[in-house]
Amino acid sequence: MRPLDGLARSLDYEFRQPELLEAAVTHRSAGSRNNERLEFLGDAALGFVVAEWLFEAFPEAREGQLSRLRASLVKRETLAEVARGLDIGDYLRLGSGELKSGGFRRDSILADALEAILGAILLDRGYEACRACIHRLFADKVAALSPGDELKDPKTLLQELLQSRKLGLPEYDVISVSGKAHQQHFVVSCRVPDLDLTVTGEGRNRRGAEQAAARRMLDEAGSDV
Amino acid sequence: MRPLDGLARSLDYEFRQPELLEAAVTHRSAGSRNNERLEFLGDAALGFVVAEWLFEAFPEAREGQLSRLRASLVKRETLAEVARGLDIGDYLRLGSGELKSGGFRRDSILADALEAILGAILLDRGYEACRACIHRLFADKVAALSPGDELKDPKTLLQELLQSRKLGLPEYDVISVSGKAHQQHFVVSCRVPDLDLTVTGEGRNRRGAEQAAARRMLDEAGSDV
Repeated sequence: MRPLDGLARSLDYEFRQPELLEAAVTHRSAGSRNNERLEFLGDAALGFVVAEWLFEAFPEAREGQLSRLRASLVKRETLAEVARGLDIGDYLRLGSGELKSGGFRRDSILADALEAILGAILLDRGYEACRACIHRLFADKVAALSPGDELKDPKTLLQELLQSRKLGLPEYDVISVSGKAHQQHFVVSCRVPDLDLTVTGEGRNRRGAEQAAARRMLDEAGSDV
Repeated sequence: MRPLDGLARSLDYEFRQPELLEAAVTHRSAGSRNNERLEFLGDAALGFVVAEWLFEAFPEAREGQLSRLRASLVKRETLAEVARGLDIGDYLRLGSGELKSGGFRRDSILADALEAILGAILLDRGYEACRACIHRLFADKVAALSPGDELKDPKTLLQELLQSRKLGLPEYDVISVSGKAHQQHFVVSCRVPDLDLTVTGEGRNRRGAEQAAARRMLDEAGSDV
């Protein structure tokens, strides 16, 4: 367990109240003055700062695309990677059980500690300092996003995926149309013969239903897109 | 459809860029320059501002309690109530289908528009203005939270709920204990004979497992606590 000023240096941040950083790296297994409340705060701050960042960085992205980009940045695995880049595991205060079972290597504990550190910075110097730290820590991750892929629509992505796997193109068919003129409801099937998979999608028009079906087929086909 | 300066007055906020407010009240059914991206932004801002607010207002609350309090504030029904208080329905730009089907009364459309308005204010004058607006709009809701209840643990809440319904007390039994000394894992059952319900909870100690079981029983018993 290294002294915490090393972690503050890695963060490029000087704490006015170092006890906040101490609490942020203290897992609940190590005592009641732990990082659970700070994690709640940091998680919310991270979600917001990343949302605002992506909103500005991808002016053409639709809401669903922004949501997926954000989810990829704030998911546990990504946070644990960032935490490992800061060697947070070396600084964790863990209870003896977690210590023995290698808790300092666990994604969930590392991710929670990173969020708690962001919460600690928010309390220590306020929103702008926290935002700046998030931008420093996640700059590489945001730069590595492939907005090109995210900005493509599901039908295009599905077609590209199938072509890359040398599989035949998907077939779309309208299964049903219901409702009156301005409130129509479409159900469309998407079938990939080479995968022997058929899914359906629904929407307010044919194109929307096809896109929904393609999105579901992407999920089924195990694409990471 | 009323002119938007009335809505700005209700919000006690003057837009530098009124076109942002116009976009915020435009549902996707009414065109491509709609409120979906603004809603993404406003949703994230609201989640963060409320998290920080509750963190400060309830210094004794644990993470799970803060999460539940926040969820109660940002859920669709609560947002729709706040939106109705601002008469947002009167200002919505809806497509003809949504207009005919009464979309201006729908919780989801009202809640989305409110979030989009918060996103519009964030873009218009920045974080502090957005935060101040959220504090104005949600002050009554936060004041009406019953932190007393939220700060009680699930076993206490369950007991009080059952007593208020003139039902017998719950019974807790240890079903299994596994793992070594410092990594034990408890499974406990909680049974309410008068409801003929049994659920289980897990935890790192008996008390934790009992609390988890009680929390699940509260859910099962349909408590709003």
